[in-house]
Amino acid sequence: MTPDSQPSPPALAGSIAIPWRQGPVGIVGLGLIGGSLGLDLQRQGVEVRALVHREATAERARQRRLATDVGTNPAVLAGCSLVVLAIPLDRLLEPPQELVAALPPQAVITDVGSVKAAVLQRWRDLHPRFVASHPMAGTAEAGVEAGVAGLFAGRPWVATPEPRTDPACLAVVQALAEAVGAHWLSCGAAEHDQAVALISHLPVLMGAALLQTADRAGAAGAGDLAGLVRALASSGFADTSRVGGGNPELGTLMARCNREALLAALGVYQQQLAALEQQVRQGDWQGLRQELNRSQELRAQFV
Amino acid sequence: MTPDSQPSPPALAGSIAIPWRQGPVGIVGLGLIGGSLGLDLQRQGVEVRALVHREATAERARQRRLATDVGTNPAVLAGCSLVVLAIPLDRLLEPPQELVAALPPQAVITDVGSVKAAVLQRWRDLHPRFVASHPMAGTAEAGVEAGVAGLFAGRPWVATPEPRTDPACLAVVQALAEAVGAHWLSCGAAEHDQAVALISHLPVLMGAALLQTADRAGAAGAGDLAGLVRALASSGFADTSRVGGGNPELGTLMARCNREALLAALGVYQQQLAALEQQVRQGDWQGLRQELNRSQELRAQFV
Repeated sequence: MTPDSQPSPPALAGSIAIPWRQGPVGIVGLGLIGGSLGLDLQRQGVEVRALVHREATAERARQRRLATDVGTNPAVLAGCSLVVLAIPLDRLLEPPQELVAALPPQAVITDVGSVKAAVLQRWRDLHPRFVASHPMAGTAEAGVEAGVAGLFAGRPWVATPEPRTDPACLAVVQALAEAVGAHWLSCGAAEHDQAVALISHLPVLMGAALLQTADRAGAAGAGDLAGLVRALASSGFADTSRVGGGNPELGTLMARCNREALLAALGVYQQQLAALEQQVRQGDWQGLRQELNRSQELRAQFV
Repeated sequence: MTPDSQPSPPALAGSIAIPWRQGPVGIVGLGLIGGSLGLDLQRQGVEVRALVHREATAERARQRRLATDVGTNPAVLAGCSLVVLAIPLDRLLEPPQELVAALPPQAVITDVGSVKAAVLQRWRDLHPRFVASHPMAGTAEAGVEAGVAGLFAGRPWVATPEPRTDPACLAVVQALAEAVGAHWLSCGAAEHDQAVALISHLPVLMGAALLQTADRAGAAGAGDLAGLVRALASSGFADTSRVGGGNPELGTLMARCNREALLAALGVYQQQLAALEQQVRQGDWQGLRQELNRSQELRAQFV
């Protein structure tokens, strides 16, 4: 904490005392998260300056009015009091030098990456006012066409501060999250990464394995089993395989950037599945029934 | 085939030549499938006679007009030209003697069980005009309140005839299925059971194991990981765990009645998952990306 440079504490959303309203907000990347944030902030009268990679993206972003100003030159970020790095995880972990150099020293910087320990490790020394955060909004859509107003309403926005994180900067990001209607949460980066491995990254591998199983077992079966599985697959299969059939680039990035937590989650999952398999193999129907009862109860706690 | 007792071949749905329109249709059980069928048939002017287990159910079914007549005495089925056994799989596999005795010898009999080899094995000698079938409509709701009109429209209705199945009886069931708008399919019972193990029963165990994993890993984690996973679980987790958190009784019955096919599906799934795990462990990101690309392509074939 450096008292001299602290903005005043955040007030309620909508108040002019919110520090990020004292200057334009910068957004780097206008995909689903960046574009949606740009739309929401402009609706509240905030000036949004966006930096994108390609001129064609900038042109389309201007047509969609995703930001007040859109440019491909990092200088567009000059004068921003808050900059949100809404770029893909791999670029976030290996940021272009010109991007880092263009971030105003007095601005609060935050990211939207879905893995936090690796991001903190990379960024804690790149900017003194960095706050790691993760707005948990849908990821099925991507690109400059994906942004929509109201994306964050009622969704979690998780920050993962560490002891050296400036509390005033953290408060600025909280005010931003709450201004767009998100539900603010704060936890350790390792805890966050374990949680998303369990609830988000593990399901990707589960769903992918299911699709491959139905395909390969179908192809190896007698008659037209391959055609039959495709004809009969309905909502249960569609739901269970949805994230497994999602964006391959994103799925690979999640696994790469959260490998240890994902492997730990996979290990527990394989044990649980093997225990259920054992009940089926042994014909322990009372035991299986108890486990499925428990699963039904558990789901109500999660959903 | 017994030529003397054959009804005339089915005509197009809506024609008076359809044999099941020559007499009332009986439905045993007025849960989701039976109740929905009763509503659809009555809308087409068909007289529906329903047999249920308890008088309270009969009373409620009469209030909901799920059938023209509802009774708890099997004699209600007398005179029916077609009887649909819409009872739970365990009762179907161990049918009450009085039910079997009450089925008119000249009626076509079909069932709606979600496993077919075990049903055929039990029923092929109980009634000469039995046809095994499986309308694949949603199973989340159950009981006398569950039936809704239009449930079968556009959904698969699979028959699993064997060489001794009377083709004329099969045609009657096809006409019934098509009259309620279902998409008719026919295959072997073993093939059906393998397909539903892959697309329907395996996802139940997958989802249950996921819920237990998130619960147990959460409870074993540092800090409030248990609370965090519950706070952060969103649509991806909800979808992947949906059928795993479904009806425990139904899930147990499916596993019990389709054990071998389910164990085979589970074995392939565990291999596929282990292969993905190996790629993550070895950091083979190019290989993982290829597998996730393939999964994305596959899903479009299934959904």
